[in-house]
Amino acid sequence: MTEHLPTRNIYLHDVPLDEAIADWQTALAAAGMLAPLGKETIPLADALGRVTAEPVWARISSPHYHAAAMDGFAVRSEDTRGATETSPLLLRLDEQAIAVDTGDPLPSGMNAVVMIEQTQPVTRDGAEYIEILASSAPWTYVRPMGEDVVASELVLPANHRLRPQDLGAIAGSGHREVTVYRRPRVAILPTGSELVTIGSELKPGDIIEYNTLMLGAQAEEAGCIVTRLPIVRDNYPAIRDTVAAALESHDLVAINAGSSAGSEDYTAAIVQELGQLRVHGIAIRPGHPVVLGVAQSQAGQGKALVGIPGYPVSAAMTFDLLVKPLLYRWQGLEMPDKPTVQATLTRKTLSPLGEDHFLRVTLGKVGGRLVATPLAGGAGVLMSLVKADGIVQIPRFSEGHDAGSQVRVELMRPLSAIDSTIVVIGSHDLTLDLLADRLRQGQPRRSLSSAHVGSLSGLLALQRGEAHLAGSHLLDEASGEYNIDTIRRLLTPHRVRVVLLGFVNRSQGLILPKGNPKGIHSLDHLLREDVAFVNRQRGAGTRVLLDYALAQKGLNPRQISGYERQEYTHLAVAAAVKSGAADVGLGILAAARALELDFVPLFDERYDLVIPVEHYESELLAPLLALVQGQDAGFVAAVQALGGYGTEQMGEVLAEL
Amino acid sequence: MTEHLPTRNIYLHDVPLDEAIADWQTALAAAGMLAPLGKETIPLADALGRVTAEPVWARISSPHYHAAAMDGFAVRSEDTRGATETSPLLLRLDEQAIAVDTGDPLPSGMNAVVMIEQTQPVTRDGAEYIEILASSAPWTYVRPMGEDVVASELVLPANHRLRPQDLGAIAGSGHREVTVYRRPRVAILPTGSELVTIGSELKPGDIIEYNTLMLGAQAEEAGCIVTRLPIVRDNYPAIRDTVAAALESHDLVAINAGSSAGSEDYTAAIVQELGQLRVHGIAIRPGHPVVLGVAQSQAGQGKALVGIPGYPVSAAMTFDLLVKPLLYRWQGLEMPDKPTVQATLTRKTLSPLGEDHFLRVTLGKVGGRLVATPLAGGAGVLMSLVKADGIVQIPRFSEGHDAGSQVRVELMRPLSAIDSTIVVIGSHDLTLDLLADRLRQGQPRRSLSSAHVGSLSGLLALQRGEAHLAGSHLLDEASGEYNIDTIRRLLTPHRVRVVLLGFVNRSQGLILPKGNPKGIHSLDHLLREDVAFVNRQRGAGTRVLLDYALAQKGLNPRQISGYERQEYTHLAVAAAVKSGAADVGLGILAAARALELDFVPLFDERYDLVIPVEHYESELLAPLLALVQGQDAGFVAAVQALGGYGTEQMGEVLAEL
Repeated sequence: MTEHLPTRNIYLHDVPLDEAIADWQTALAAAGMLAPLGKETIPLADALGRVTAEPVWARISSPHYHAAAMDGFAVRSEDTRGATETSPLLLRLDEQAIAVDTGDPLPSGMNAVVMIEQTQPVTRDGAEYIEILASSAPWTYVRPMGEDVVASELVLPANHRLRPQDLGAIAGSGHREVTVYRRPRVAILPTGSELVTIGSELKPGDIIEYNTLMLGAQAEEAGCIVTRLPIVRDNYPAIRDTVAAALESHDLVAINAGSSAGSEDYTAAIVQELGQLRVHGIAIRPGHPVVLGVAQSQAGQGKALVGIPGYPVSAAMTFDLLVKPLLYRWQGLEMPDKPTVQATLTRKTLSPLGEDHFLRVTLGKVGGRLVATPLAGGAGVLMSLVKADGIVQIPRFSEGHDAGSQVRVELMRPLSAIDSTIVVIGSHDLTLDLLADRLRQGQPRRSLSSAHVGSLSGLLALQRGEAHLAGSHLLDEASGEYNIDTIRRLLTPHRVRVVLLGFVNRSQGLILPKGNPKGIHSLDHLLREDVAFVNRQRGAGTRVLLDYALAQKGLNPRQISGYERQEYTHLAVAAAVKSGAADVGLGILAAARALELDFVPLFDERYDLVIPVEHYESELLAPLLALVQGQDAGFVAAVQALGGYGTEQMGEVLAEL
Repeated sequence: MTEHLPTRNIYLHDVPLDEAIADWQTALAAAGMLAPLGKETIPLADALGRVTAEPVWARISSPHYHAAAMDGFAVRSEDTRGATETSPLLLRLDEQAIAVDTGDPLPSGMNAVVMIEQTQPVTRDGAEYIEILASSAPWTYVRPMGEDVVASELVLPANHRLRPQDLGAIAGSGHREVTVYRRPRVAILPTGSELVTIGSELKPGDIIEYNTLMLGAQAEEAGCIVTRLPIVRDNYPAIRDTVAAALESHDLVAINAGSSAGSEDYTAAIVQELGQLRVHGIAIRPGHPVVLGVAQSQAGQGKALVGIPGYPVSAAMTFDLLVKPLLYRWQGLEMPDKPTVQATLTRKTLSPLGEDHFLRVTLGKVGGRLVATPLAGGAGVLMSLVKADGIVQIPRFSEGHDAGSQVRVELMRPLSAIDSTIVVIGSHDLTLDLLADRLRQGQPRRSLSSAHVGSLSGLLALQRGEAHLAGSHLLDEASGEYNIDTIRRLLTPHRVRVVLLGFVNRSQGLILPKGNPKGIHSLDHLLREDVAFVNRQRGAGTRVLLDYALAQKGLNPRQISGYERQEYTHLAVAAAVKSGAADVGLGILAAARALELDFVPLFDERYDLVIPVEHYESELLAPLLALVQGQDAGFVAAVQALGGYGTEQMGEVLAEL
């Protein structure tokens, strides 16, 4: 090992996924690292979930003796021949009939048991007898030796993951221990000068290092013993020496990040120096900068050495795709199949040619049809993986799918859970999060998945049958009414009959930095040259409201600096103000409060739920409607605690359209 | 608490399953024990698989600042307006363009990043510039603050089981800990004077106590902290005091066995004395003697108190059915659904009216059809639960199903595993176990499930399309040939075309107690009055062989004592001899060796594999045929190590019929 930086540059070169896997596997096989790692013999009490490394053969029979299967008397079948209700037989106690309890060994010479309920004690000439009213065939009410398992029989094959009943069967066949594959030892090393540990005070540029937490949990799920190493800064020798030390005591070392080709990306070079670099870059999205290699311990033992990308979605997905199958194989197993379903894609999805694309989608069962909606966000948006119900793989020779296509979805949640998920789309409001929480508390099976696309897109989704309900606050400029006109325009012609249900009234107003340094108090201040505004997207109810108010006051939107800058939620607008990227936005009080910002109320508006009749009457929505129409006390209190909300019309049927 | 035995008798009274559950739940609810038990706040690194007890709201935004998403230069979008390849623009370094790496905070006033690859450094008049060839829209290559999650947003609802990505998202939104439901504490108490610990030397009447191992593993699978208490003998005060002490520190105490109504069955009385006995006896099979109750700790805390039957299949299945859902509920979850499939039942199955019957079945995908075969064995045959692929529930108002019925099967193995299982039926031979093991070693996905029904029943199963292959050693008395005549009679007329594949030749002979105390050396000795024989079932090849040999020698089977006594496998015959229940049986050397018995060889016979052509040519059977036809060295060595086997014809195609 040398202390200077590597002189040879490592270039990132994307190869197709299947080639990358094949190449790595060839190298792993050559290093003897494509087979189970080794065996150990452990007590049965520790063996749940472990995998047999050898077949288990019965050492003894079970039962290991002929056992009475009833409380009663052990008899010789021959002695009972001819007994009937009309001509009972007497058997001499302790000679022809010996009392036994269930589980007792059958006394020598006996071959059947008569239930105690079918006998009568009789004393005759001072001797004790039992009277029987029926004959017994041989082996009646006897559990013969070996009924369960006979010594030398196969109890379990090798490569079998042990379940509770297996542990019982192994113990019952005379073993106290079992030989299983040893658990792989996995080290995960976070590298990067920008990383700080979970719980640190943050300054701009700091990144909370949670990939090690997540990747470690993935390895634990796969049955491994995990070492989460401390963060190492971007220093080649420091990273290299830490990796070299970890290789001595682990089967696989995963270096997190530094796997790309930037000036401080050392992972590929370190793999090259410590072992054999087989793959640097895979044509998958998310994921590109993956490093796959093999190495050896000083004792010559083969090791796997990988570099995992830094963006959390890339990290989690590439670990799942590339590392986990190896961890299973090392324990004599193949990766469990993820169940798949066919679903209808709700949006057109473009995918770059030449890349295997793993699209995160939410799923919903709407009107008997399973619909898949792609989640927005790149490799840095971990919430897309948290919210995902499944993955759609778009192969590298495809440019994507049109809306309405049938796609195969690999499920991340059971289909039964998806079937009982209420799909909400449209305008976002914080009270929907509260409703989701309240619903889940009462009904662990019922969950609520919400997509924030604005009021108009929400109603369009109802038109296409992609959601169970939409949150909407669309003001009609002519009538001054909320939602009704738009529903008549967008849904009625498509025969989508809906119930318009009151939900909350809320304050819309100006969201401003703490202390309102620029003294912005009314709409006309937005036109000032020194004021940078942040707007909501086209179709958002808040934007409609703004345009309506500007028109009423005769103000020209074109004069507002930042009118074109769009955010998709109230909180995103507040975040833009909080960060200083904008001086003011229009939104709800709750969003301003959440980020400790100032708020100047301008309007009071209605935020309703629009529910197609078929869903309004469904069992699925019943618990949600019970909360809303019953004005559930806990829910109402939580809404009011947010501030800026009225709940007077909650649950009121405002119109049936 | 009193020290005398309870004076009031407790009678077992079976109630229907749903009534039993409802009654117990009412009592649990009254004791406050039908809701999650309590919360605890734990570090994220310990939280995998735990369940959120509260919603998780983002404490900070992620990213918590506007971050460069590329290595390059931070710029003001306005400054780039108008740049094209033909009219590039110069931006003054450190004023209009500030160098940033991926993840760096966007310098104040900047709102876009230009990739380093799309710039050229330029020096003009001693000042440094970068040249750009295109304009940048605002927020290009910027990860805006809150892109992943905005402070105050809902990250996860309550009652959510934490996955690796959830841990990452919680950490990323500013938490180091998470509030989850505490794990239930479960104590399992084995009672019974006949019980001995795993690994004890056994004498007749001893029962290895492994239910605690198994039930504890079931509770561990459900996320509980388990105490496995030491065995307590059948002594009322001792059991009662142990239960009372366990109730103080556990949420649920399960007393194993003593739950029936025999003289030493104290469980119901103890539940009665320590708390409230709600259910004693449930009309389910297996399972009947179940005890369900509630109790309190001395501090008045509600507790669940149950009695679980002693037979291992009853124990495992009633725990699953009754206790596990409660353990899930205590953690804010419902029991995960087990996937179900429709399958064709291969045998008529009778079920007692009035009882919910849970039938263990094996499943096989044969010729595109999923077939379910009921497993033999009562509640004492734990191997039936080990071998089961699924459960068929026969409701209490049904008397069972005819062969060929469509039934719903709750899966215990994934369907993909069942799809890749080779179903073998027919005569049993130990070499099939070796083949199963060898197959699994090479192909973790491919498994072999074998039912031992004798040669003739095996061929009949092929006729009905219920298995992929059959092991058969049916001698034709006329031709002296093996299998061919029977195949012509049973399969050819049904257009089942098969390949007859050589497998092993084996010695059949007399299985005798060690030392052969009765001096039995030939077939005619079986007719001696002092000799008790044990036979194989009708249709078994060994029985055909016996009858053939007896006929050839002019011996009358009726004169053989025990000729009517049937066992279904070679090992069961050997076990009968071993136990002294019979003096002699006919079987193979391997079975005698396995139980350390004496053996007198009489015949050499062929044991072939009969494989329908459609399966012979299938991908499913390819790895098995590769082992057999390739005379796999490891497999052949294992077969020869058994003794009494020849492998000369292994893999040879003996006939195509």
